[in-house]
Amino acid sequence: MNHPLFLYILLQLSFLIAPFNMSAQEDYKLWLQYKKVQHTKIASNYQSKINGIVALGNSETIQVATKEIQLGLSGLLDSTIALQQNTDKENMLILGNKLLLDENILKNIKNEFDLINEEGYIIKTIQLKNKKHILITGKTDIGVLYGVYNFLKLLQTNQSIENLAITDSPRINIRILNHWDNLDRTVERGYAGFSLWNWHKLPDFIDQRYVDYARANTSIGINGTVINNVNANALILTPQYLEKVEALAKTFKPYGIKVYLTARFSAPIEIGGLKTADPFNTDVKNWWKEKAKEIYQRIPDFGGFLVKANSEGQPGPQNYGRNHVDGANMLADAVAPFGGIVMWRAFVYSEHDVNDRAKQAYSEFVPYDGQFRDNVIVQVKNGAIDFQPREPFHPIFGAMPKTPLMMEFQITQEYLGFSSHLVYLPKLYQEVLESDTYSKGKGSTVAKIIDGTLDNHKITGIAGVANIGNDINWTGHPFAQANWYGFGRLAWNPYQDSETIAEDWLRMTFSNEKKFIKAVKEMMLESREAVVNYMTPLGLHHIMDTGHHYGPGPWVSNLSRPEWNPTYYHKADTKGIGFDRSKTGSNATAQYAPEVANIFDDATTCPEKDLLWFHHLPWDYKLKNGKTLWNSLALKYQEGVNQVASMNSTWNKMENYVDEARFKEVQMLLNIQYKEAKWWRDACLLYFQQYSGKELPKEVEKPIQTLNFFKSLKFPFAPGI
Amino acid sequence: MNHPLFLYILLQLSFLIAPFNMSAQEDYKLWLQYKKVQHTKIASNYQSKINGIVALGNSETIQVATKEIQLGLSGLLDSTIALQQNTDKENMLILGNKLLLDENILKNIKNEFDLINEEGYIIKTIQLKNKKHILITGKTDIGVLYGVYNFLKLLQTNQSIENLAITDSPRINIRILNHWDNLDRTVERGYAGFSLWNWHKLPDFIDQRYVDYARANTSIGINGTVINNVNANALILTPQYLEKVEALAKTFKPYGIKVYLTARFSAPIEIGGLKTADPFNTDVKNWWKEKAKEIYQRIPDFGGFLVKANSEGQPGPQNYGRNHVDGANMLADAVAPFGGIVMWRAFVYSEHDVNDRAKQAYSEFVPYDGQFRDNVIVQVKNGAIDFQPREPFHPIFGAMPKTPLMMEFQITQEYLGFSSHLVYLPKLYQEVLESDTYSKGKGSTVAKIIDGTLDNHKITGIAGVANIGNDINWTGHPFAQANWYGFGRLAWNPYQDSETIAEDWLRMTFSNEKKFIKAVKEMMLESREAVVNYMTPLGLHHIMDTGHHYGPGPWVSNLSRPEWNPTYYHKADTKGIGFDRSKTGSNATAQYAPEVANIFDDATTCPEKDLLWFHHLPWDYKLKNGKTLWNSLALKYQEGVNQVASMNSTWNKMENYVDEARFKEVQMLLNIQYKEAKWWRDACLLYFQQYSGKELPKEVEKPIQTLNFFKSLKFPFAPGI
Repeated sequence: MNHPLFLYILLQLSFLIAPFNMSAQEDYKLWLQYKKVQHTKIASNYQSKINGIVALGNSETIQVATKEIQLGLSGLLDSTIALQQNTDKENMLILGNKLLLDENILKNIKNEFDLINEEGYIIKTIQLKNKKHILITGKTDIGVLYGVYNFLKLLQTNQSIENLAITDSPRINIRILNHWDNLDRTVERGYAGFSLWNWHKLPDFIDQRYVDYARANTSIGINGTVINNVNANALILTPQYLEKVEALAKTFKPYGIKVYLTARFSAPIEIGGLKTADPFNTDVKNWWKEKAKEIYQRIPDFGGFLVKANSEGQPGPQNYGRNHVDGANMLADAVAPFGGIVMWRAFVYSEHDVNDRAKQAYSEFVPYDGQFRDNVIVQVKNGAIDFQPREPFHPIFGAMPKTPLMMEFQITQEYLGFSSHLVYLPKLYQEVLESDTYSKGKGSTVAKIIDGTLDNHKITGIAGVANIGNDINWTGHPFAQANWYGFGRLAWNPYQDSETIAEDWLRMTFSNEKKFIKAVKEMMLESREAVVNYMTPLGLHHIMDTGHHYGPGPWVSNLSRPEWNPTYYHKADTKGIGFDRSKTGSNATAQYAPEVANIFDDATTCPEKDLLWFHHLPWDYKLKNGKTLWNSLALKYQEGVNQVASMNSTWNKMENYVDEARFKEVQMLLNIQYKEAKWWRDACLLYFQQYSGKELPKEVEKPIQTLNFFKSLKFPFAPGI
Repeated sequence: MNHPLFLYILLQLSFLIAPFNMSAQEDYKLWLQYKKVQHTKIASNYQSKINGIVALGNSETIQVATKEIQLGLSGLLDSTIALQQNTDKENMLILGNKLLLDENILKNIKNEFDLINEEGYIIKTIQLKNKKHILITGKTDIGVLYGVYNFLKLLQTNQSIENLAITDSPRINIRILNHWDNLDRTVERGYAGFSLWNWHKLPDFIDQRYVDYARANTSIGINGTVINNVNANALILTPQYLEKVEALAKTFKPYGIKVYLTARFSAPIEIGGLKTADPFNTDVKNWWKEKAKEIYQRIPDFGGFLVKANSEGQPGPQNYGRNHVDGANMLADAVAPFGGIVMWRAFVYSEHDVNDRAKQAYSEFVPYDGQFRDNVIVQVKNGAIDFQPREPFHPIFGAMPKTPLMMEFQITQEYLGFSSHLVYLPKLYQEVLESDTYSKGKGSTVAKIIDGTLDNHKITGIAGVANIGNDINWTGHPFAQANWYGFGRLAWNPYQDSETIAEDWLRMTFSNEKKFIKAVKEMMLESREAVVNYMTPLGLHHIMDTGHHYGPGPWVSNLSRPEWNPTYYHKADTKGIGFDRSKTGSNATAQYAPEVANIFDDATTCPEKDLLWFHHLPWDYKLKNGKTLWNSLALKYQEGVNQVASMNSTWNKMENYVDEARFKEVQMLLNIQYKEAKWWRDACLLYFQQYSGKELPKEVEKPIQTLNFFKSLKFPFAPGI
């Protein structure tokens, strides 16, 4: 058999043929890959330091902590680390909360327990009878569990585990995901498939994903989840659904994750048979009290309610001539006996209010400062409009010192390319958290407001609108996992650097190879500025196509509510572009502390990244670079496209560091992002050019399509609506 | 550290804590697990017989065949089998189509190529220069690929590979899945999550699932897929979507899987800008011709159209005074130049027709026999109503000898407990395929009609309405994978025994352990009769709650269309129960050949399993068991419940044979099935008892709930609508 013409050896298979894996395992495992430590010296050092596991207590939480450490070590060390009954042998890993530690162990602890709170943990190398061990402890079992995940992180990121002495606690109490999941499993603004919650099969079928969801969250410090949409359906509060919610809550409990629900304000009418939902009505108050009781009977650790009221058509207290305080306090009174809280959203703006939309939430909520019950926390989006690629911090932060304020970040990329664009959001979160409100002088950062230290609040919170769906990889884009991860890390400690978080994530998710980390971390860190540049540079905002918010739509001006129209936001005309929010305009700048207001108010001191957010400026206006506004704007769009090109080229060099499946996924998605970045650039510049009447600078690639082509594009089944 | 009170060793973790796997890998891999062969003697025998792979040719199909055999062997043999350039060494596995085989190989072949068709394969042990090898060949590369999967199946099921001499060909040309998937990714009658097709990210993002979907299908012989709902949206035919369809078609092509689309009859109006869709209108004809051309330019191997017309509100030729032949032939002419076909559904019944719904399709379609174009095939559901747990075969089979008839089975469990009930459907399929129509005398089975042998048809087809969604395990229930698998196997060869198929599936999917196979196979084989018993025994049908078809609803009688009401079907009254379709009733029996009609027509000869399908009988009617109809009915319901209890008990003994994750999934689902079987029993018996006025036999457990309770149950977000 030698017939060379017909004999082909298929050593290198064509790129046309997708890889075979039939598992998608890596994708599913998120940052908990627990792959064998590759660096042999490091691996053998870990081996030598971990000879067995001694677990104290038998709560469900300690059980999952033990399972997790065994799972993690069996992967990382590629060997089974046995459970031991005592510390006779050296190098035990001891897990147990403070109350279960005996004297000899406690002798090893100095003041560490004073340094941590109820959820904090201590990881410490200790000595017992001259033998070294590693202790993971905390004041509670949940603290121990957090310690376990953080100990595993040390190994996952190839850190030293010699002479450990780590103490850490979360800075914020309520670290929570908001799932905008509907009961039909569609997800509003969801781009990763459909809802994780299989309501039909609950309560009797507990999907393995629920457990893995809890593991992933706890590993990064998230301790709460609002499982249904803020645009709420009252049916979630019926026994039929509460039984299902209870099953989820039971699954999450060992992981220290509390379940919260959104409360539809009109529920007393819709499912209670009442004629009103007036918060001053006794029947209404009692209905909510009974409902709270019913919920807490099923779910003793139920967290409380999240409410979107009198916002974008949702019912609320104003339907009855009451205000937000009346509504929030009524619900707060219902859950107070059980230790529950109410998260009341400040995302309000009215079609009947002709004022600048950016000003309305502040105008409405600031006068309520100090009037809310102790168990109410007001949830404020990071910016005054709506989760744009960039917004100045929301002026409410710093303006309601007597009210606990909770941050609402969006993890899902409603306005940032859905799940096709690689955008590392912790950069955005960090920018907001570090913003100085000057509310109590210099250093009054947003982080200090939401962690309660500035105004001395006991209840503190941070929410992230989840980007999680039933896609095998959870988030649609493999790199969108980093946004979930990074949100959790910043929720735990809002002072962390997003670069450190990116590096940890890369090491845990992909590889500890330095070359890979350096290049891909740079790509991640630049990605947020890239999306700003190719979508909304220099302070532009909300010029996405309407409804689905997919792609550019600066031309849209025909929606019923003026403040839903992109033209409302960019105000481009032959004279110039931008929204004048300075003293000469809407005077939104006055909502900030004077130190901040003065800077924003003056176009020459206003950061150029926020320029068109606050100012309407002529096309010929000169920026600091000496170039005109028109040219600078066009160059920014081009810069964004160039950045994505560069991201592509970076990634294409990473093939050897990443499994084939994820490598190709990211490659395909970066190609989409590049295509869409050009679409953004061309559509926006062609549109704005009608007003500027100017040529594009030579550095900007010429559009191939016409403006009419871009305007003609329709996406009838865009996801997430 | 010896504090025994606090020292707990967690060797056995509580059942409350779900398992950790963070992979769900087994679930995802379907029957292509390729796990290491456990039986050491068998494994070493395989090892000794397979020393290398020689692949001939380099088509995409040969490339995927090579990759698949490598993937499979690396798992099954736990070692890498290298590609070789020639057969110098012994025990090569040679892959290549007939044209690429050299003389020495061909000498080993007798008449095997005459025994197979274009898609068939040969697996043969051959000798070259006194060295033994295994040859996998066929007339085409696709044949080789089928051979590869079937060779792997031998290993997966621990069969001998000594002196192989296998020839096999599919008996049916078009072996196709029908996906009732909408463009918003909801799936009509889908219970496994949402649509696999991520239209938003197509064409640029090729999900790994598309590849694995193709692999799974080809491994069982499926060669076509209709990717969108029969209740069609014309947008699929626009360039925006055709570009996406093209990307899927390209992905499936190497696997021998053709893409088909559903054609909305009114598309010329909706997307073509015409004022009519009249099939006699020249503009309409031309529009379809141009549309076909456009599709074939993109997708040269496009399969053709599937059409649901003038059925359940879908538009069709009757809207213009034309008939099904006019509509089908017009579309057939459009695709004929490109080799396309039209699958025209016979699922029609009218709210304006007072005749027994079971008779209407026959009445309407049989007169058209012989009038359809050569490239039209009429797609007929297995029974005359709609995918019930049991139906007598559809009377159209055997009644249209001049027309190729295609079988439409439902794999998704619309009327059979969604994806929570374990029901092994190949038992149902086999029952239908073996049914004797007597159309050309004894032995004129349905199988012989659809494989074309009875009436000598060239185009033959079989469709399965897919049960596939984006759940990690594809089908919602791990055992529902067996229905996809079994459909494919029967599509390839409709004469196979469902028991053999169950055994193969169990071996490939779970384990080759005899004890496991014996017990679980029995459970599967019994499961279909169980669902009949606890839902619709003795020929009852269509008494599911309406709309979603979840759970019992025999009381429903208020729907606008009479034939959508369960009361229409069971006709229970104080006199008795059942639908009289005999001569004294609707005379639907007359639609069968006399040999069949006579048997059905007489209650004493009618098989008791079909009794109430054909007869309305008094509650006191005596069955062959000597018991009254009422008692027998009640006992059947109880028997169904008992069967599910027994399934539970069987499964609970299987823990050692199955991975923890799948073991628990099935366990939870069987618990749901048991709960729901009792719900069915109690709701139906309480309802029918109103009419029978009789006590339940003592063997039947007494209902705990009232009829009113069952009637009050509502499922506003039941999946699949």
